[in-house]
This record gives sequence, C-alpha cells and structure tokens, in this order.
Amino acid sequence: MKLLEERILKDGTVLGKDVLKVDNFLNHQIDPVLMQELGNAFADYFADRNITKILTVETSGIAPAVFAGLALGVPVVFARKHKSLTLTDNLYCASVYSFTKNTTNEIAISKNFLSSEDHVLLIDDFLANGQAATGLIDICQQAEASIAGIGIVIEKSFQRGRQELEAQGFDILSLARIRAFENGIVQFVEEEGSR
Amino acid sequence: MKLLEERILKDGTVLGKDVLKVDNFLNHQIDPVLMQELGNAFADYFADRNITKILTVETSGIAPAVFAGLALGVPVVFARKHKSLTLTDNLYCASVYSFTKNTTNEIAISKNFLSSEDHVLLIDDFLANGQAATGLIDICQQAEASIAGIGIVIEKSFQRGRQELEAQGFDILSLARIRAFENGIVQFVEEEGSR
Repeated sequence: MKLLEERILKDGTVLGKDVLKVDNFLNHQIDPVLMQELGNAFADYFADRNITKILTVETSGIAPAVFAGLALGVPVVFARKHKSLTLTDNLYCASVYSFTKNTTNEIAISKNFLSSEDHVLLIDDFLANGQAATGLIDICQQAEASIAGIGIVIEKSFQRGRQELEAQGFDILSLARIRAFENGIVQFVEEEGSR
Repeated sequence: MKLLEERILKDGTVLGKDVLKVDNFLNHQIDPVLMQELGNAFADYFADRNITKILTVETSGIAPAVFAGLALGVPVVFARKHKSLTLTDNLYCASVYSFTKNTTNEIAISKNFLSSEDHVLLIDDFLANGQAATGLIDICQQAEASIAGIGIVIEKSFQRGRQELEAQGFDILSLARIRAFENGIVQFVEEEGSR
C-alpha cells in the first residue's frame, strides 16, 4: 500500500538492527484518516469471505480493526494482555512471547465473544516472528472458530512470521512489507499490489 | 444519546452496587457502527472549539476517540498505562487511582506528541470519580496544552467526577448519564439532549 509505505518512510524511525518505531501515526499517536484507509484495504481484500468477527490484540491493532469492522459490518473483539492470569474462568487464553521485549504475556478473550459459528479475520499492527498471530490462532482453535485470513499493517518480511503462517495455510494481507533496514533506511519488498 | 442508552439497557450488565459491564459493545467486543456514532456526537458538540488533538487512555477510549478524530480532522494520542515507570525521560506522567480495582497505574504520553500549541479534547469511556480525566488534565498542564473539553461515553452521575471537573471549569459532554442502578436496572438522568 503506497500511502502506508510513504508514511513509514516519512515518519518511521529505525532503531538498531530490526526495530521500526511508528509512534507518530500508529502505536502512540494515531492518524485516523490513515487508519480508515488501512481498515478499508483489509475490508476490500477480505470482502467475500463471509467474515463474522474481527479479532485483534490490544492496543495498537484496535484502530485499524474498528475501521475494517465498520466496512465489513462486523464486531471487533480485542484480546486483553495480562502479565499473568490467575482466574481463567470463561476465558480462552494463550501465551505470547515478545522477542523485542523478551517477555511473555498471556492474552485472553471471553468465551462469550467467540464461538464455533464464527469465521474470523485476525488483524494486528506488526507481523515479525508471528507470536501474536499464533496466540490468536490458538484462541480461535480453542473456540472452534474458523479463520478467514490475517490482516497485518506492517510485516517484517525478513523475519519468519509470514513463512510459518503460510505453511499452515493462512492467507495473509500485509499492507506494508519490509525487506530490510539498510543503513537505517526502510527497504520494502518490491511487488505489484501489497500482498 | 438515545441510541447509547438503549444499547446500555439491552446489553449492559449491572454488577453489585456500582459497576456497569459493557463488554459486549465497548470494553472487550466493540461495535464499530456505534463507535462511529459516538465519535460523531463528540465531534458535533466540540466542532467549533479549534481542537488540534484528542487525548485518551488505552484501551477502551481508543475506538470512540479515533472516530471523533476522523470527524474533526485531528490526530488521537493515547496515554499508555504502566504498573510503574522507571524510565520517564521524554514522558509526561501522571498517577491514576482506580477505585474499582484498588490499584494505582501510571499513565504516560511522549513529549513528542503534546505541546503548548495544542488545544485538546479529552475522551474516555467512563467517568466515575474522575481519576483518569484528572490524570489526563495533569499531563496537559505539564505540556502547557490547553483543554477544549471532555467527552465521556458513560458517566456515573451519582459519583463525584463530573462535579469536581465542572468546579474546575471544564465543559463535559457525556453521551449517557447514569443516575442510579435500581434493583440491577440502569436509570438515566432525565434531560433534554445528553449534556
């Protein structure tokens, strides 16, 4: 997605070898106009998949997910992050390891909001090693919900997340795919369209 | 706001004496259509105030805030919650006590995203004792940003938040105002309009 790539080049900051900071428009300050464009792009791509619900993780997945939900006419459920969970009654839970922070969080969704009747679109802000997506997939499997596909705002294509998720048969739309950081400059995967 | 009051009566659950659970459409599962209506209501009311930025707190304020931001044409910044903060470089911080959970969280906003040139609309999901709003006001004062007003989705009018904020001169728009919970049934403040 050209608009998003341009915004990353303009406002993103590369930190160290593999961290991209996009606090300016996605992870801390949010640009609502851009979020609507991202949500519409997800909705266009997955329009004919009979999606019943969008699943994301707090916090930064919420803004693009609600615009996709508005366009697709379906509710959005966000998994909550917890350091640890003592009460897991009525919750679907999964562990998500963060390579960036070297921490493990539990993510959880109430059993009230996901069922075997759901056909789910997963949306998240970043795809790197695929830990968050794998946690959401785990939760869908516990609920016996089927998965229509995965929508990602920014993919680090040099990490293994996409490869592992594709090997499991998932259809992934990433709106920006980063091939590498070269001397602090973001290089995108060159392709027609943004898949 | 009639639409929101009806939704609270239909899908909200009263727990104990003073807790309203709205996990069905706001705090865990999100109804994007309703969120757009809420955002537009905030934008309509504060349209002529020359707002430059919307400030909210993660997580549940984000969805109504991004729709208000879209309608007003301004960015949204969400304060992050932390159990404690050791590194406070380049952050505006405030402490927020939660009466419901009996815990204190630090909330923080990067100094990059708030300045003395900003005229801010604060948005949050609930107003009860006014702790979160007071934390956001504290942060605006540190940044020397001015405050245009406060937009609240659900106000518990039987708690002291509104009274204390009005005493400080703030203009508050609450889209639903709860007078009391009577035998587990939500009773709204009766008034013309929703102020």
